[in-house]
Amino acid sequence: MRLVVVGGVAAGMSAAARARRLDATMEITVFEKGDTVSYGACGLPYFVEGRVKDWNQLVVHTAEYFRHERRIEVRTGAEVRSIEHHRRLVRLAGGEEVRYDKLVIATGARQDRRGIEGAEQPHVYSMNTIPEAIRLREYLRTARAGRATVIGAGYLGMEAIEALRTHGWKVRVVHGGRDFLRRGDGWLTETIEKHLARFGVEVRHGTRIKTVPSEGIVVLATGLTPHVELAQGGGVELGRTGAIRVSDRMETNLAGVYAAGDCAEAMHLVTERPAWIPLGTTANKMGRVAGAAAAGARERFAGIVGTAIVRVCGLGVGVTGLAETEARKEGFDPVAARVEALEKPHYFRGRKVQVELVANRRDGRLVGGAVIGDSGVEGRINVIATALTKKMTVEEFVDLDLAYAPPFSTVWDPLLIAAQNLNKLVH
Amino acid sequence: MRLVVVGGVAAGMSAAARARRLDATMEITVFEKGDTVSYGACGLPYFVEGRVKDWNQLVVHTAEYFRHERRIEVRTGAEVRSIEHHRRLVRLAGGEEVRYDKLVIATGARQDRRGIEGAEQPHVYSMNTIPEAIRLREYLRTARAGRATVIGAGYLGMEAIEALRTHGWKVRVVHGGRDFLRRGDGWLTETIEKHLARFGVEVRHGTRIKTVPSEGIVVLATGLTPHVELAQGGGVELGRTGAIRVSDRMETNLAGVYAAGDCAEAMHLVTERPAWIPLGTTANKMGRVAGAAAAGARERFAGIVGTAIVRVCGLGVGVTGLAETEARKEGFDPVAARVEALEKPHYFRGRKVQVELVANRRDGRLVGGAVIGDSGVEGRINVIATALTKKMTVEEFVDLDLAYAPPFSTVWDPLLIAAQNLNKLVH
Repeated sequence: MRLVVVGGVAAGMSAAARARRLDATMEITVFEKGDTVSYGACGLPYFVEGRVKDWNQLVVHTAEYFRHERRIEVRTGAEVRSIEHHRRLVRLAGGEEVRYDKLVIATGARQDRRGIEGAEQPHVYSMNTIPEAIRLREYLRTARAGRATVIGAGYLGMEAIEALRTHGWKVRVVHGGRDFLRRGDGWLTETIEKHLARFGVEVRHGTRIKTVPSEGIVVLATGLTPHVELAQGGGVELGRTGAIRVSDRMETNLAGVYAAGDCAEAMHLVTERPAWIPLGTTANKMGRVAGAAAAGARERFAGIVGTAIVRVCGLGVGVTGLAETEARKEGFDPVAARVEALEKPHYFRGRKVQVELVANRRDGRLVGGAVIGDSGVEGRINVIATALTKKMTVEEFVDLDLAYAPPFSTVWDPLLIAAQNLNKLVH
Repeated sequence: MRLVVVGGVAAGMSAAARARRLDATMEITVFEKGDTVSYGACGLPYFVEGRVKDWNQLVVHTAEYFRHERRIEVRTGAEVRSIEHHRRLVRLAGGEEVRYDKLVIATGARQDRRGIEGAEQPHVYSMNTIPEAIRLREYLRTARAGRATVIGAGYLGMEAIEALRTHGWKVRVVHGGRDFLRRGDGWLTETIEKHLARFGVEVRHGTRIKTVPSEGIVVLATGLTPHVELAQGGGVELGRTGAIRVSDRMETNLAGVYAAGDCAEAMHLVTERPAWIPLGTTANKMGRVAGAAAAGARERFAGIVGTAIVRVCGLGVGVTGLAETEARKEGFDPVAARVEALEKPHYFRGRKVQVELVANRRDGRLVGGAVIGDSGVEGRINVIATALTKKMTVEEFVDLDLAYAPPFSTVWDPLLIAAQNLNKLVH
């Protein structure tokens, strides 16, 4: 039995490792186009910022480790050019053919630079790959701080702002949409924008860049697009989101062919429809399930609720589920409550945290939330995410037995205050 | 319509305030035996420690505030001595009779000093009431640090250790049980004990104190007992735990008589039996529901899952649901998994956090958990608490869509690693 994995970052290596753990005899080969496997791409902004000294710190396991400790054949610099599923083989750049019994497609996503001219100029940078991150960091370390334009206001855009500010640059962020983090949440955008203003960061919404500015440096942080061409060419079907459609075992429309990570869709447990939200955690989970399926085990990946978190100039911003406007688009009848409250008592240097909860008026079910603050963000957004996963109502949420002691929280947690306010609106 | 509330701390004042909000015309009188209403007793250890400068900082609202802003008659220093429900009246010390239509009993809990001789000596302190906390703090501020014995190893015991250590005292903790926090969890006890050893804190388990030591000072931190004598005398029935039995509207066996807070039981959502776990958050929630019920509104309190958190010499310890041994006693077939992992990447100064998850082998349902660490404790214990509330299985927990970005967490959160390990044991 031979398993071929295309792509060796988060999902691909998770799949290979999981398959090996479940099947000691399977032949497993991973093809990775780049030079490095199994690295945490989410750490690249912090490498650019300087906090991560050496990009090797972001590598979880080396190709050597997988070869010798896990008996997984890892081939870096090896690009798979086509899939011929009727013959069960992949063809590499150079023409080499490699046969498979099971195939995992983990080709990831790439930055979408369509419609932006001049992106190839030397003063234009990005943080999406190790070589790009190295080039930006080297420049920031040696150059005198000046003016930088960040194009894009998603997660990577926020992280680019923080990295540039750390190096002392004056930053302007420009994007085509109206809202940060592509969430359609005016409150969230306003809150972040107010915070950014304190750091002299200029914001221009609704400005689609056609040609990169020539002044200063430019960091491209535009959205991602799933890398699906290889899969499509091999007869793998896409879903409505444009990413690869998969079952809860990560199987595509082709028997024995699985897809996982940023190239694939995942079930959204709030909308109950497939969604495409490319994130590292999801990629790892999907990879594990794909690897298990390839090894013949029956595991499943239930899906996601759209949880994400980002830090921008020290401010933590966590989101999960749907914002109010998104919920309306998805056919819910949403109501939202927002509060600002201390996350700990004053005498434990508690800071203000803002919480937004969104529910469906008809049945009182929670459909989303956001938490913004200097601290206490990740724990609270995770509580909301857990509640969404189990389709909790606001009425149930109000009674949540959350931990309280003065060093950790207030007796009425901001989450519970928000839920009490929201509870009045759903009844 | 006249509402009488007996007890004016957390549950009592919550009940009074909630009733007033829902009914503008009701006559509301609160009788409080002590001098102060509506204070956060959970903050007293931090007043003793010195972090809270003035105990008035712990007062949420003064009696004056309730009188003038909420039109609630608050009588401090007023002890209710008996309830005569057939005549719908309470009798105060001194003989005064006060009629009621609805009655909320929020008499709280008191420290159980039965079987301990010499507790009234001047070198014996406690932190349960404002006067006692003031006396201890004054002593610690002026005395030269020496040797202290803490009797009791529950939450208050842990907080006493921390407060005494802050003042430079050499601490010994002595208690009759085997485990810290009365949880029957050897792993938890061992972890805390190892930590305490670094601070020179001596621990003696299984040592029931009959006479307080004469050497050094002694801080009594023995367990609580519900204050139910008044209620019992009035014909109110107790539950199997010895606290007042209530419905999910906080009603006792007597129509129109409600009980809330540390004197009452609450439904435990894991065991599905009433439990008595006196904590400030629960008291506030119960108080609100009792107040609503007294005002004729239909609200309910679903119950608790036994979440609690404490800090001891900087270490955060959070628990929820049942420990393995407790789960066995309750008729479950428990399996547990424990992991130690970084809560954030090294380059964000991530610290190790320990997570324990307990599940019922038969159906894979989570029944409890504990989290111990220098940081990242409260958020994680709250995620487990939320999962318990909705009777989540380990299999579901493994897929939880938790927030990930390097400043906040690791790509595989310690919670998910523990769940993966546990998932192997339930299948």
